[in-house]
Amino acid sequence: MTYRSGRHFLQIPGPSNVPDRILRAMDQPTMDHRGPEFAELGKTVLYGMKRIFKTENPVIIYPGSGTGAWEAALVNTLSAGDRVLMCETGQFATLWHGMANKLGLETELIEGDWRHGADADAIGRRLSEDAGHEIKAVCVVHHETSTGVTSDIAAVRRAIDSTGHPALLLVDTISGLGSVDFRTDEWGVDVAITCSQKGLMMPPGLGFNAVSAKALEASKTAGLPRSYWGWDEMLQHNAKGYFPYSPATNMLYGLKEAIVMLLEEGLDNVFARHARFSEATRRAVRAWGLEVVSLVPSEHSNVLTAVLMPEGESADRLREVILEHFDMSLGTGLNKLQDRVFRIGHLGDFNDLTLLGTLAGVEMGLACAGVPHNKGGVQAAIDYLAESAVAVRTEERAA
Amino acid sequence: MTYRSGRHFLQIPGPSNVPDRILRAMDQPTMDHRGPEFAELGKTVLYGMKRIFKTENPVIIYPGSGTGAWEAALVNTLSAGDRVLMCETGQFATLWHGMANKLGLETELIEGDWRHGADADAIGRRLSEDAGHEIKAVCVVHHETSTGVTSDIAAVRRAIDSTGHPALLLVDTISGLGSVDFRTDEWGVDVAITCSQKGLMMPPGLGFNAVSAKALEASKTAGLPRSYWGWDEMLQHNAKGYFPYSPATNMLYGLKEAIVMLLEEGLDNVFARHARFSEATRRAVRAWGLEVVSLVPSEHSNVLTAVLMPEGESADRLREVILEHFDMSLGTGLNKLQDRVFRIGHLGDFNDLTLLGTLAGVEMGLACAGVPHNKGGVQAAIDYLAESAVAVRTEERAA
Amino acid sequence: MTYRSGRHFLQIPGPSNVPDRILRAMDQPTMDHRGPEFAELGKTVLYGMKRIFKTENPVIIYPGSGTGAWEAALVNTLSAGDRVLMCETGQFATLWHGMANKLGLETELIEGDWRHGADADAIGRRLSEDAGHEIKAVCVVHHETSTGVTSDIAAVRRAIDSTGHPALLLVDTISGLGSVDFRTDEWGVDVAITCSQKGLMMPPGLGFNAVSAKALEASKTAGLPRSYWGWDEMLQHNAKGYFPYSPATNMLYGLKEAIVMLLEEGLDNVFARHARFSEATRRAVRAWGLEVVSLVPSEHSNVLTAVLMPEGESADRLREVILEHFDMSLGTGLNKLQDRVFRIGHLGDFNDLTLLGTLAGVEMGLACAGVPHNKGGVQAAIDYLAESAVAVRTEERAA
Amino acid sequence: MTYRSGRHFLQIPGPSNVPDRILRAMDQPTMDHRGPEFAELGKTVLYGMKRIFKTENPVIIYPGSGTGAWEAALVNTLSAGDRVLMCETGQFATLWHGMANKLGLETELIEGDWRHGADADAIGRRLSEDAGHEIKAVCVVHHETSTGVTSDIAAVRRAIDSTGHPALLLVDTISGLGSVDFRTDEWGVDVAITCSQKGLMMPPGLGFNAVSAKALEASKTAGLPRSYWGWDEMLQHNAKGYFPYSPATNMLYGLKEAIVMLLEEGLDNVFARHARFSEATRRAVRAWGLEVVSLVPSEHSNVLTAVLMPEGESADRLREVILEHFDMSLGTGLNKLQDRVFRIGHLGDFNDLTLLGTLAGVEMGLACAGVPHNKGGVQAAIDYLAESAVAVRTEERAA
Repeated sequence: MTYRSGRHFLQIPGPSNVPDRILRAMDQPTMDHRGPEFAELGKTVLYGMKRIFKTENPVIIYPGSGTGAWEAALVNTLSAGDRVLMCETGQFATLWHGMANKLGLETELIEGDWRHGADADAIGRRLSEDAGHEIKAVCVVHHETSTGVTSDIAAVRRAIDSTGHPALLLVDTISGLGSVDFRTDEWGVDVAITCSQKGLMMPPGLGFNAVSAKALEASKTAGLPRSYWGWDEMLQHNAKGYFPYSPATNMLYGLKEAIVMLLEEGLDNVFARHARFSEATRRAVRAWGLEVVSLVPSEHSNVLTAVLMPEGESADRLREVILEHFDMSLGTGLNKLQDRVFRIGHLGDFNDLTLLGTLAGVEMGLACAGVPHNKGGVQAAIDYLAESAVAVRTEERAA
Repeated sequence: MTYRSGRHFLQIPGPSNVPDRILRAMDQPTMDHRGPEFAELGKTVLYGMKRIFKTENPVIIYPGSGTGAWEAALVNTLSAGDRVLMCETGQFATLWHGMANKLGLETELIEGDWRHGADADAIGRRLSEDAGHEIKAVCVVHHETSTGVTSDIAAVRRAIDSTGHPALLLVDTISGLGSVDFRTDEWGVDVAITCSQKGLMMPPGLGFNAVSAKALEASKTAGLPRSYWGWDEMLQHNAKGYFPYSPATNMLYGLKEAIVMLLEEGLDNVFARHARFSEATRRAVRAWGLEVVSLVPSEHSNVLTAVLMPEGESADRLREVILEHFDMSLGTGLNKLQDRVFRIGHLGDFNDLTLLGTLAGVEMGLACAGVPHNKGGVQAAIDYLAESAVAVRTEERAA
Repeated sequence: MTYRSGRHFLQIPGPSNVPDRILRAMDQPTMDHRGPEFAELGKTVLYGMKRIFKTENPVIIYPGSGTGAWEAALVNTLSAGDRVLMCETGQFATLWHGMANKLGLETELIEGDWRHGADADAIGRRLSEDAGHEIKAVCVVHHETSTGVTSDIAAVRRAIDSTGHPALLLVDTISGLGSVDFRTDEWGVDVAITCSQKGLMMPPGLGFNAVSAKALEASKTAGLPRSYWGWDEMLQHNAKGYFPYSPATNMLYGLKEAIVMLLEEGLDNVFARHARFSEATRRAVRAWGLEVVSLVPSEHSNVLTAVLMPEGESADRLREVILEHFDMSLGTGLNKLQDRVFRIGHLGDFNDLTLLGTLAGVEMGLACAGVPHNKGGVQAAIDYLAESAVAVRTEERAA
Repeated sequence: MTYRSGRHFLQIPGPSNVPDRILRAMDQPTMDHRGPEFAELGKTVLYGMKRIFKTENPVIIYPGSGTGAWEAALVNTLSAGDRVLMCETGQFATLWHGMANKLGLETELIEGDWRHGADADAIGRRLSEDAGHEIKAVCVVHHETSTGVTSDIAAVRRAIDSTGHPALLLVDTISGLGSVDFRTDEWGVDVAITCSQKGLMMPPGLGFNAVSAKALEASKTAGLPRSYWGWDEMLQHNAKGYFPYSPATNMLYGLKEAIVMLLEEGLDNVFARHARFSEATRRAVRAWGLEVVSLVPSEHSNVLTAVLMPEGESADRLREVILEHFDMSLGTGLNKLQDRVFRIGHLGDFNDLTLLGTLAGVEMGLACAGVPHNKGGVQAAIDYLAESAVAVRTEERAA
């Protein structure tokens, strides 16, 4: 590969750019995970993650990926042959559905067009029909990384409650948590699932479950075989700040720093920052004359923007051109969106100037790849960001 | 905690001390694990691990711990109710046995006294009796981290072969690989299991399976539910250097460096170095008038030395005194050895002077804690190391 | 200070952004600078710096700043009361002039307007008049960091040679070396001066002299008192790869990596990259309706662009607004340009997208600060960079 | 070179082993040294160094080595031809003496045998004779790195005061500060000199002057030419937290952390720790039947121990053997002690177990090199350290 000067722009929708503070925190000698010093670290991150998840209930931390955390949520709460209701919001919902089938669950998929969030009404309707309570869990992706569409989890909870159905609510907030608001307890989420490499700004390697009392109760009778993912032993050891098997110690060093950074900035500021980047990005996309995948404004992702290519144009060739000419990685279109969309990640440790560098890379890539578009996307983003920056600083000063 | 000057001595039997080269290799921006640059990294570590495992067959790398790699070995090769034969060599064999039960397997445990390796003859006898081939797998811990006893895997293979029994041979070499010789293919190991934080000199966070053709064949019909640990999707993606879900990218950066370091030193030199440290440690233990747990010289661990306390003396108090006074972590006695033994790790990125610092810490700890012992352990180790150092350098110069 | 997400944009004209490779190379245990391993490091960096300076003569490396390297050039070659001819190209020429006076030299300053390079003809004329060869040295700043104006050193050398005057030619290429072409030997530079934090992409802390045979000869009789800066002892120790007093070892680790990076990219590619960034920046400035300080196109800096504010507008207030709103540091106007200009650094480890982020920060800052300007600067840069990127990659592929 | 596993033992008397906290603190993006954030850093380290020097007067920080800080002390306070009185305590006193001559000072050297500290009485006598006050400064090395002998600075001050002589007292505490007690103000030191790589636990690259009001007054009329080292401009900029030329920014990051670490441990604890290591080392030396260079117990260094070889044995060959066999660097004998002594550094970020590893390396080296000695040096150190460790922890608990 050609020599590349300067920093690579990693603008996929996760892993996000890991800040130096976190990399340096991880770059420390591994400690004895059975020693007294470790217990402090363990308690700190376990407690800190509760604040990020907005829950009073326990959070479980696995050495593993988000995919592992999906599996953990399923095997701890369900038994072979249990029926689960899932919503086809995009590729990650589809993969989770595939996993549920592999694990021996009976799955029902509410189909979707990959441009909308989960249909709370449809969920409510289906549960109403399930008088025998055969459906044991409703599985929803809060924030679809493949499409840039958010689902309204509070609405899903209301839909469930309105039917009086006892199904558990399992929610994947892998690309949402730490970037957009997520209220585990307030929204009645029974298992919230995330991982380290999105809003938590870390490298991949940790998976998380936030577990409600109801989910914990369910785990006592859930019959799917489990050992590594078992909550019971985890919680037993976590109580004293330890883990039943070797934790990914240096990742936990990073997590501790990540939590500090999120709380230093303030979660509400983090969310507002992401919202602003997202609006700027959509203004750029509109100025280019292109279309975002997400159709409903209230569902637009603040973490990434999936952009539809003009008819007949290859998204993957555009991404290649951008990587080759401008050293920026963008997200590919997945599954049925393959080669049809590209995804711009604007999450994590990120600021105005890096966003504008990112959008400039897209605008130049469109030009270099000969994709029909209008100029002026970056200009539109500049105009919006400059104007809103003044407002942001004014508020900060007032605060 | 009191301020501590200088480096902590992490002399537990893993995690071992992570060398700066590896920590610094991990301290790099996370890359796009779907991009072209990643494929080179993926292929490099996947191929490199074959050299460490001494196998021509595929190696699987999981974001996870060694415990996860155990689970992977079981769920990929076995079905609910399958019978597995296990050997009680110590605490880790016991834990693996517990996991097998949790996962719904029928387990048979050949009892042991925790001071010997697996009994190959007993395995052979049991398999001979199993005319119906109900036993689907023999599970052996190559190197028992809880006792410092090695099992003779080649002998176990011969015992199995002598009976013509088709059981798979699953071997935990978690604390062995990369420190003592392990020959996956030559010894006919069907699944070899390890993790990152021992001989590979990394922080915890990666689990590994080296998988024989026979094990792979078994996985096609194995019925235990699995998704995260499934070999099939892994191998499909690994073929091009990728992974089916987010790999622990920065850990892979470290793994790449770890493999380079092991091959730079030369595996045989690595093994010889560990053997020399182990001999020096045992000489120190003998000079103190104490006893090592391992009873058979050919089974003595080169990775750690588990030492029995004199009757009536608390190993855990000794460890506390050593941690408090000399900032060194030693391994605790586990389960039935609780408070009866302490374990000295002498593995990984380690040299003569650090070993002597370690042994000096033990000798001073024995004095400070008032444990009856003879002086002169460090002196015995010094005498042996000085003499053998001359021989080592002479060989190096000749080479 | 308000919490800042993402990376700070350090777009002053040095220190430039230090790449991770260099920071991580420095982040290694300090070694014995009298031991055998050090000699290899010493030789490697001393030889490598010759390649960067394009000289066959020795390069001296000091723990110190560029200011120290100025002093070294003067005290090694001159005696109290010696006359030196200097050119007022900007603030750094002025500072060097002040230093010469402090050290007891007689200085003559050819005045300048801070918008042009050194006047080779004027130098030639002055030397012609100096029949008695009282002028011992001509001191020129190759690349004025305060104005973004380059001086034609080859022309200065021709002017000197045309008079047959024996004066030494001392050149400050502090912000030039490693970013724009500099040919120590070909241009007959007697002492070339630089430091670590500009084109060498390192933190500040090292100063350099590249020393011609003629300068070395002069040092034998030069009478200014010196010890720390003395070339003689340095060269004596450097011959074996060592230094007469403690070198800044970890900085040398970084320097070794910096040299590797510059040679990996290829010096000509480095220069071309900087030229392209510079052209893009000037296009942006013109589009904003602003003026660059440098008046002669052939003298425009490729390292930084100094921009004149519209009459009555404060450059320092603009810089404050940009720092506060967009977390970017720009260079201040110095001395007579105080508050009249701001300087955009586009040097070092830098790429297209970061440049566009930088320019976007300026454009937004102009808006937020209410400075009269036209929009479209970033767009002009985008248009130029997109077009030229295609040409760059085409050439690379051909190569 | 042969592959080396484990950490190198850098047991020269500086650079000392740089702790990870400091290396990681330095491994951060370089900031704008003219920006507002820098001023906080500048003030923090300038103030912090006052606490380490135990002074209310200003401390100057140079990008440079300790040798540069010597030069700074001389050129700021003296004029060409000024007479200075120096004491031949060892190689560094000799080098400083050479520097003073080079810079055009008239020097007088009180001869010494390199086994004693500065002779305060002799200084007093010489000053008494200097009725005309031709001697402008007395230069003493507080802690001779070449011999491991400390000079009693308070006694020197008393000797000067008893004569009523106005000479300045310039003191090199390069290897003393931060390891053994040094009281700049209480002892009436006019310029105290140090650098970064000894008790401050950093890599080389910073030099320091702590400057009394009297020295500052002297600098107003001192005539030696100076610019880089000039205190006046430094103090002017330091007042706001800035520096007149580029500071070694990343070294200052490290310095900030170093100061925090010293104050966290507590200076008195730091000094006590070094005293204990020193006593243990001397006990080992005595047990080997060898002799330390320092003859007067109250002058024994707590930072390093210089050991005399038995007659006819080469210290440098021993050092080579130890480096080759045990990967440890020891200090060489300098000048008239060349090949006659080796020096063991036991300073900086250092603990009991590393000291014992160090001493074990020496004892094994003596054996491997065939140097006549008695065994038991490490044992003697172990006995002392074990006993005193109990006392140390008991005190800590009481505190």
